[in-house]
Amino acid sequence: MHAPRDLPLMAADVLARIRTRRPRVHCITNSVAQNFTANMLLSAGAVPSMTTDPAEIREFVASADALLVNLGTLDAVRQAAIKAALAEADGRIPWVLDPVFVDRALSRATFALELAARSPNIIRLNGAEFAALAEEQVAPAALARYARERSAVVALTGDPDIVTDGARTISIGNGHPLMAKVTAMGCAASALVGACIAVEPDAWLAATAGLILIGIAGELAAGSAHGPGTLASGILDALDGLNQRTIVERTRVG
Amino acid sequence: MHAPRDLPLMAADVLARIRTRRPRVHCITNSVAQNFTANMLLSAGAVPSMTTDPAEIREFVASADALLVNLGTLDAVRQAAIKAALAEADGRIPWVLDPVFVDRALSRATFALELAARSPNIIRLNGAEFAALAEEQVAPAALARYARERSAVVALTGDPDIVTDGARTISIGNGHPLMAKVTAMGCAASALVGACIAVEPDAWLAATAGLILIGIAGELAAGSAHGPGTLASGILDALDGLNQRTIVERTRVG
Amino acid sequence: MHAPRDLPLMAADVLARIRTRRPRVHCITNSVAQNFTANMLLSAGAVPSMTTDPAEIREFVASADALLVNLGTLDAVRQAAIKAALAEADGRIPWVLDPVFVDRALSRATFALELAARSPNIIRLNGAEFAALAEEQVAPAALARYARERSAVVALTGDPDIVTDGARTISIGNGHPLMAKVTAMGCAASALVGACIAVEPDAWLAATAGLILIGIAGELAAGSAHGPGTLASGILDALDGLNQRTIVERTRVG
Repeated sequence: MHAPRDLPLMAADVLARIRTRRPRVHCITNSVAQNFTANMLLSAGAVPSMTTDPAEIREFVASADALLVNLGTLDAVRQAAIKAALAEADGRIPWVLDPVFVDRALSRATFALELAARSPNIIRLNGAEFAALAEEQVAPAALARYARERSAVVALTGDPDIVTDGARTISIGNGHPLMAKVTAMGCAASALVGACIAVEPDAWLAATAGLILIGIAGELAAGSAHGPGTLASGILDALDGLNQRTIVERTRVG
Repeated sequence: MHAPRDLPLMAADVLARIRTRRPRVHCITNSVAQNFTANMLLSAGAVPSMTTDPAEIREFVASADALLVNLGTLDAVRQAAIKAALAEADGRIPWVLDPVFVDRALSRATFALELAARSPNIIRLNGAEFAALAEEQVAPAALARYARERSAVVALTGDPDIVTDGARTISIGNGHPLMAKVTAMGCAASALVGACIAVEPDAWLAATAGLILIGIAGELAAGSAHGPGTLASGILDALDGLNQRTIVERTRVG
Repeated sequence: MHAPRDLPLMAADVLARIRTRRPRVHCITNSVAQNFTANMLLSAGAVPSMTTDPAEIREFVASADALLVNLGTLDAVRQAAIKAALAEADGRIPWVLDPVFVDRALSRATFALELAARSPNIIRLNGAEFAALAEEQVAPAALARYARERSAVVALTGDPDIVTDGARTISIGNGHPLMAKVTAMGCAASALVGACIAVEPDAWLAATAGLILIGIAGELAAGSAHGPGTLASGILDALDGLNQRTIVERTRVG
């Protein structure tokens, strides 16, 4: 296991690789989050694509470096697109599952369970979503067991964030409460994690790097924001301008 | 009837209740407005959800505290979602109708008339939309008659805004011309009114509070904005930071 | 041909006409770009509408002054909407084609070729899209030949932008690298070009004016932005506040 003291440099290195390689991240995501998610990926240095059309998506996924499957505003078209995309991605490129609002609709939770069984590299979710998906309350041991059973990394955002692959578990203290007042912040975090796994094959490191980076960008933005509106634009500025020194100084993991 | 001098404190109190109770507002709204609308609700302290899938929407509405039906980018899926959502909402939670652009398409106006007959608690629209829906020109007496006949509150945004339930009619002078240069501002106002009616059972008070709050937030944002782009982020900041004293000082009703 | 020295004043005059006439621009555009595109049009003084429903779109196009057909997030509904919209627009109002990401999906490229044969007044695209559509590399002579063969203006965005109708070819040096880090910037440019052609019948002048205006607005915004997030709001502010003197001072064409 990487000792926590290596992680800040590792996160900075993952960002540097995104900027150099410019990975393509195809996002099947909800209509609320598409614009902010695309801007988050561009700010990191990645190249987003967003089509959800089942007829076109295989070609987009075929030339992508990672795939995001976000279940917000799920509908029949998106369900078909997800199936086509996963058939194309199948083992060739990594993918991230974001089971948005599975705590609000049983049919969505059922679909999410099917997807969770199809070996996502990373599942990024919040506490309520984990509780609905795993049918147990959030606790480090429960997260680790869930990750181990599915051979997936679980990346839980909250205060703190927790990332686990069952063997390695870390908590991340970065971030700012104002981030919860910007819609699609979690969705954009999942996409950023997708950019990280496009350049970092260790899914646990990729998820950890992604959450450290967005957390630090959020803190920096909160320092000059006047509220959630300027935070939303400021976090894109902060991610675009983020450098290794700031990452090393600000990373709070334990 | 509440005397106008009570209204500023009432508006502040409605906002305080939104912040405390965090009502869930399910929004069937157009794809242009979804992101800004969700952010407006979050800035007020409410919790947005946005799915328009007919298969999922009943569950979302079942756990919501208010429903917004906005007719922008209307299509067959949204029409089916609206019917399913209203069947679920039926008398249990309040709902707001926003008949976007009914002046531009006859089929949309026809659908809006059907919806207006299904007892929306509040109809939020602009002058051109009212004229198309009511088939008469905008005037306080026409608005009041329309409200009375449908037992709905009519909340007309313009300069000034007018809110009437047929018996009580008020004009609101808050707001700023630059707000008209931000897309989905009216849609977001309707959603905010939805958050208000989730915590204030008197629909006339809820609509009045909602338009006062967004008007004041817009004025505050315009004071520091450099144009429509920074106004869009600034109004979210302003709503998030709005306090009772500012509301009382700035409310302009008559 | 207009000598380059006339172009700055011409661009300023086109913007003045947009502000005075407030043309309606109907946009069939991708879900990622809708909000930013609508705000770009409002900031210019135009009136956007965005429905993609095949059943409603003819009425919207019937009362529009120009049409944008953008192929991002293309699906069966958008394809049907495009056909209905073009049947309505047919020779009555000008239209702009934006063949987004035709380099990423063969089916989309095929559809784009069909549309390019239906006499768009302007085709706005980037280098990769031109190469996929024209099956040859970007070069001024190739662009001019392509434009001549289709009797369409080709407006290529890049560094520099190139606008040609086959007879007249100009390169535009305005713009800023940070613009490429904001999603939908090209889509919004196409919509702005649509607003220009709604008030300027010479498609070459309209496309040239549109790209000059967004390029200058981007430069001004980049001057005070802290990154791509504040650039996105700043470019809307800058376009809204743009005046003739600034346009004349900053236009760089050759």
